[in-house]
Amino acid sequence: MNAPHNLQMLRKPLPAEMSSALQQLFGERFSTGQAVREHHGKDESAYPNMLPDAVVFALTTEEVVAVVNLCNQYQVPLIPFGAGSSLEGHLLAVEGGISLDVNGMNQIISLDAEDQTVTVQPGLTRKQLNEQIRDSGLFFPIDPGADASLGGMASTRASGTNAVRYGTMRENVVSLTVVTAQGKVIKTSRRARKSSAGYDLTRLFVGSEGTLGVITEVTVKLYPQPEAVSAAVCNFPSVNDAVQCVIQAIQMGVPLARVELMDTAAVHASNRYSKLTLRETPLLLFEFHGSQHSVKEQAEIVQDIAKECGGMDFDWAERTEDRNRLWTARHNAYFAGLQLRPGCRASTTDVCVPISRLAECINETTAELEKASFPTTIVGHVGDGNFHVLMLLDPNDAAQWEESERINQNIVRRALEMDGTCTGEHGIGLHKIQFMAQEHGEDALDLMRTIKKSFDPNNILNPGKIITVDYSL
Amino acid sequence: MNAPHNLQMLRKPLPAEMSSALQQLFGERFSTGQAVREHHGKDESAYPNMLPDAVVFALTTEEVVAVVNLCNQYQVPLIPFGAGSSLEGHLLAVEGGISLDVNGMNQIISLDAEDQTVTVQPGLTRKQLNEQIRDSGLFFPIDPGADASLGGMASTRASGTNAVRYGTMRENVVSLTVVTAQGKVIKTSRRARKSSAGYDLTRLFVGSEGTLGVITEVTVKLYPQPEAVSAAVCNFPSVNDAVQCVIQAIQMGVPLARVELMDTAAVHASNRYSKLTLRETPLLLFEFHGSQHSVKEQAEIVQDIAKECGGMDFDWAERTEDRNRLWTARHNAYFAGLQLRPGCRASTTDVCVPISRLAECINETTAELEKASFPTTIVGHVGDGNFHVLMLLDPNDAAQWEESERINQNIVRRALEMDGTCTGEHGIGLHKIQFMAQEHGEDALDLMRTIKKSFDPNNILNPGKIITVDYSL
Repeated sequence: MNAPHNLQMLRKPLPAEMSSALQQLFGERFSTGQAVREHHGKDESAYPNMLPDAVVFALTTEEVVAVVNLCNQYQVPLIPFGAGSSLEGHLLAVEGGISLDVNGMNQIISLDAEDQTVTVQPGLTRKQLNEQIRDSGLFFPIDPGADASLGGMASTRASGTNAVRYGTMRENVVSLTVVTAQGKVIKTSRRARKSSAGYDLTRLFVGSEGTLGVITEVTVKLYPQPEAVSAAVCNFPSVNDAVQCVIQAIQMGVPLARVELMDTAAVHASNRYSKLTLRETPLLLFEFHGSQHSVKEQAEIVQDIAKECGGMDFDWAERTEDRNRLWTARHNAYFAGLQLRPGCRASTTDVCVPISRLAECINETTAELEKASFPTTIVGHVGDGNFHVLMLLDPNDAAQWEESERINQNIVRRALEMDGTCTGEHGIGLHKIQFMAQEHGEDALDLMRTIKKSFDPNNILNPGKIITVDYSL
Repeated sequence: MNAPHNLQMLRKPLPAEMSSALQQLFGERFSTGQAVREHHGKDESAYPNMLPDAVVFALTTEEVVAVVNLCNQYQVPLIPFGAGSSLEGHLLAVEGGISLDVNGMNQIISLDAEDQTVTVQPGLTRKQLNEQIRDSGLFFPIDPGADASLGGMASTRASGTNAVRYGTMRENVVSLTVVTAQGKVIKTSRRARKSSAGYDLTRLFVGSEGTLGVITEVTVKLYPQPEAVSAAVCNFPSVNDAVQCVIQAIQMGVPLARVELMDTAAVHASNRYSKLTLRETPLLLFEFHGSQHSVKEQAEIVQDIAKECGGMDFDWAERTEDRNRLWTARHNAYFAGLQLRPGCRASTTDVCVPISRLAECINETTAELEKASFPTTIVGHVGDGNFHVLMLLDPNDAAQWEESERINQNIVRRALEMDGTCTGEHGIGLHKIQFMAQEHGEDALDLMRTIKKSFDPNNILNPGKIITVDYSL
């Protein structure tokens, strides 16, 4: 974790002419106040704060263009800022510069119910979106835990519990409006559901973490609110049995809407935190979407499979309040974990492997975690092969921090050996740059560097994130 | 259609040293014979043949590397060649060079049934793939009419009748092995179902039509063979009524596997060609996948919606032979159309619009087609907003050819005005380069040019396709 501190040495003060130009353009929406900079120089990662030199609160695409042009002219870094919920250091101002806050850009631009798409400004959060479109009978399914902004979710290629059924931001972004490093405004795609017209710029910007352009509009797919929803919970003797159950259900073609794994420690933590009485073994939490009959049928098929795989106490919750109680437990797993060790500092990991290797990957990880000097829990989006380890560290114990970093590195190495990825949904930011060469190989990384350099020749867009690029070459 | 002929002026003869190097490496798998070059210098487009200087039949990734390196060294164009079924001039050797035939690379490398993925060589066709994996209980759904190769399908971002349920190649390619213009072998992604690790190289190569690299392995998603399949056909008083029926079914969350529109002329042609007795009005052909009960439920819901929309004679085909008869009619619509005018030459179009605009787009197109001097039919992947016009021209009548080009341009202009795309699934090739600026705007096109130039600085990879790039800048 040393590199970012060294990078801070690269900071140059904001040119005075640029400051006064921004002051003139944005008035009170330009700030160099300490509190504002501190708020924009920290995220949910374990990194120390790294403050931008100033914060600009933009309200329109045209204002974003003005800021980008000034940053380009004075070669000053620019970091788009949404909800601030990223986990791997994405928005830290390692080289100072401008934090471009888009929270004021939070309007729905166009809801196209017949096409099942909505176009929004980037600061709108996923919960705000779902509240505002509820009457349309449609919903936006992607739920990365935090109430993230749509622009941020596109930037990190976010997903969450529903991805097994509805896909990730990769599959659900239809089009983006982007301000390029040259201050040009482009639209990455038409709103048609499919196209074979040239290179896929949409997918190139999705997951680019603000390093290739600034997103100012996002068009995403919506889905019909299901007629019926039911949930089920089932305990298993082992993680392996639980994963086998999921593999078989998917092979039977059951369109699982959600299937979440909690290990014994996570169940224990949730019982304590959410006052539940779940049996403390590995368990799966299912959600089914469809017609009344179809969700019943899905649950019955999964119950049969679960029984074959050693599942116990298959408990089916049809009533909304029972369902919500279970899912609240899952969604609170993070906080429940924190309560295992009051006052602790949490470190989370995020790897994803082919599902055939998932049980093996979790089992080897569990064996390592049993030797750790701090409590841990595991939760997983098991239908995708994605899991997170929550490590609860003493904030004053540097040795524990180093131990957790060692474990994180081992988990990533294990995932990569199983044809997996170092991050299923949290992104690279600063923290996972170290794994990029191992995951992609130097030649693929060179192609990414070539894209970064040709899109952003002055390296003003969120510099130092995703990949290291030598601009002197 | 003049530009490609002018481009032929750019041809340089193949350097003798390069020929002899290829001869030495490939022996009889290197050919400059007229018949072989003719076979590799024509596709299903209406362009005249444009022959490569030579054809190399590669069998391994290493051989592809050797060819790329020679082409790079001597700055000779290289065009990957699969099934030869592309429709817009993709594989025509406008600047001569080498046609790299990968049909000998047609093996399954790895079937991973638990992960529902398969990794294949690029020359394997979709029908070969489905035959070889049938016993696994899985299938590969994407069916672009022709029995295209998987490498070619990835290159053109192909789709077909199943895309409404299973997506296109964009959603279904997990990873690619690609030989870059520099002769490096990269893998674009791990086999995990999702990842947030850096720029999405997979999606960048999907749809790049051989202009950014040569695909030598393709990993795609597979799906469980549905327990039950049923089909239904329903006539409608108008295209508008049919489209409204589809919009409502999708909004009800019915997971349609296929829904195809045929206009009155297409139904008439199919009746004649396939000896059917379908009522000659616009009709929809549905296919439902799921459990026994679920396909029944889907059909019942759709039947109710169809009735509300003026649908007539909802005819539900559960038996395999009845289903096949209907779908054979749809799949033979192209040949049925040709039979409307024996000896004709066919020109097909391919646009895609947001589904809310589809009826309007087809109606305006129909009004124009009624004035045409030749027969036409319309078929559409209506769940995606994608439709094709088949225009049946006298091969000796230049005026008809010009008329069909005018109509094609009008259809594209209409689609673009409705936030649609100039190609839903056929790709750009040579024929649609003219629409790229209008669809994407010059600034987005500049980003694409920047990608092309940085990936392929010597412009050896399928030059002259997708975009015009000025390499002298």
